[in-house]
Amino acid sequence: MIPTIEWRGDSIVILDQRALPEREEYLHIRSVDVLCDAIATLAIRGAPALGIAGAYGVALAARVESGRAAEAERVVREAASRIAGVRPTAVNLAWGVERTLEAWKNAFGSRSDARAAAAAALEEARRIHEEDLELSRRMGRAGAALLPDPATVITHCNTGGLATGGLGTALAVVFEAHRQGKQIHVYADETRPLLQGARLTAWELLREGIGCTVMVDGAAAALMSRRKVDAVLVGADRIARNGDVANKVGTYGLAVAAAHHGVPFYVVAPSTSFDPSVPDGSGICIEERPADEVRTLGGVRVAPENAAAWNPAFDVTPSSLVSGWISEQGLVSPPFD
Amino acid sequence: MIPTIEWRGDSIVILDQRALPEREEYLHIRSVDVLCDAIATLAIRGAPALGIAGAYGVALAARVESGRAAEAERVVREAASRIAGVRPTAVNLAWGVERTLEAWKNAFGSRSDARAAAAAALEEARRIHEEDLELSRRMGRAGAALLPDPATVITHCNTGGLATGGLGTALAVVFEAHRQGKQIHVYADETRPLLQGARLTAWELLREGIGCTVMVDGAAAALMSRRKVDAVLVGADRIARNGDVANKVGTYGLAVAAAHHGVPFYVVAPSTSFDPSVPDGSGICIEERPADEVRTLGGVRVAPENAAAWNPAFDVTPSSLVSGWISEQGLVSPPFD
Repeated sequence: MIPTIEWRGDSIVILDQRALPEREEYLHIRSVDVLCDAIATLAIRGAPALGIAGAYGVALAARVESGRAAEAERVVREAASRIAGVRPTAVNLAWGVERTLEAWKNAFGSRSDARAAAAAALEEARRIHEEDLELSRRMGRAGAALLPDPATVITHCNTGGLATGGLGTALAVVFEAHRQGKQIHVYADETRPLLQGARLTAWELLREGIGCTVMVDGAAAALMSRRKVDAVLVGADRIARNGDVANKVGTYGLAVAAAHHGVPFYVVAPSTSFDPSVPDGSGICIEERPADEVRTLGGVRVAPENAAAWNPAFDVTPSSLVSGWISEQGLVSPPFD
Repeated sequence: MIPTIEWRGDSIVILDQRALPEREEYLHIRSVDVLCDAIATLAIRGAPALGIAGAYGVALAARVESGRAAEAERVVREAASRIAGVRPTAVNLAWGVERTLEAWKNAFGSRSDARAAAAAALEEARRIHEEDLELSRRMGRAGAALLPDPATVITHCNTGGLATGGLGTALAVVFEAHRQGKQIHVYADETRPLLQGARLTAWELLREGIGCTVMVDGAAAALMSRRKVDAVLVGADRIARNGDVANKVGTYGLAVAAAHHGVPFYVVAPSTSFDPSVPDGSGICIEERPADEVRTLGGVRVAPENAAAWNPAFDVTPSSLVSGWISEQGLVSPPFD
């Protein structure tokens, strides 16, 4: 398990993702200001992880304020709205903040018991964190059951503990299979343009002592043609009712190659990523990101300054290329109602 | 046409590829030492371009020495062997040197006429250069005939003028179609790990005023699913008797995606790249290159230092996925005897 975020005594401890993979550094956060800064500068990122961070943030604000009952409500509410406002489009962040604030308010109640409310907020934040881990464990078990021993798998992007409470989605399957004693080797697509596979997935696997080889995205098909690959495991940003999957760009090409080689292609995502309101992939809007993510890398220019670049954040893999969808409910099949 | 290399007056003018795509700089080379240094440091690279550079190098040595007939033979031979030795595995370099040295020796003859020999060497070097351009023009015409107007094509790696005498292989097709007035737009795979597509192909196309969009390699399949792509055009390092093609890693995945979408996939290479002695792709040895090409980019580390990386230089695309092979002889079909 990756120590992405943890409540320890009187502080939130966050693994500083800005330093990865070079250094494993931790931030010990004792104030809402410092937490907001950590969220804003991407020391912690990823939808589920932000939900947990927001929840612990409210617990932190409540704890700091637990001595001054009179002002507590105003201060905790203000802190909650400040935390949620750091990344206003991160739905999970606002959700984690709101749920913990509700717990705080219920406990604060008419007796204005700030101490009891702080305890209730921390309990709720811990529950949110534990629920996230439980989702991952369930996905992990369902997916691990599908892997042979030994197994060679290909992953794309980062689907591990760093974006979540510590275990992840597709990588939770790898962690669980490893925990069960299966011999797993992961070929991690580096995942251009932002290289989450090379930077984060490889770091997580090495840290857990799981065999990992990084490759350029273009090498995945060649790998399938040259050695037995038992599965491709990817996450999902959104899954349509018919099973079409929007995920990090490059996923679709990987799915086409997997189908060509008869390699099972599994999508691992919690049920919150399934969106029955979208009939199929054509209804999923694909964010296009800045061209400079393609034209540069870590400050190094790799293409002419005046070259156009196409940089879709995601692509859509049609349901027909997916061998199985794995949620916390196990192996599920479309239509997803 | 790209001014990769040119004989001008008394010197070899080389476009310094080390400065691309940032700056368009030229080296004016008047001595064999400077030429050897330019070759060693990859100011010029690519098999056909090195053949031409070697040939002009012998002409340069002969010119410098044309005043001293007595010593000329020893000096020119010594220069030739020094140039060829800079990159001993570059077969074309040795070939260009050897062919020009032969022309020099024949003209030097028994009369020890160093001046006539220098003229003959230069003439031979120019012929080698012109032959290369003529191969490109022929491939260009054969390929351009297959493209509609307007046309959207995908390219992989650099197959343009920079690796050759100025026109290239797959990119010669684009240049010729553009010259014929066809409206061509190229989506250039950036081509990790060394990014020849982003760095060199995009630069060549912009320089010629041809529409070009760079994308990460993982986006190519998504592009085919989202808009009409008329052709994929790639080069080849080696083509087996049955038509299997070894080319830059990522080519195979692109071919699989093209087949999946019914997009014609053309391989453009001079007949010297066809190797009838190799029955099929399984006989082509795939060079594995240093892991740090994957783990770093322009000096920036992108993966943990202790992460393993798989870095095959090439992959093999089976004949069954190739829609057509284009050589200077036009559209050709296996078996290639």
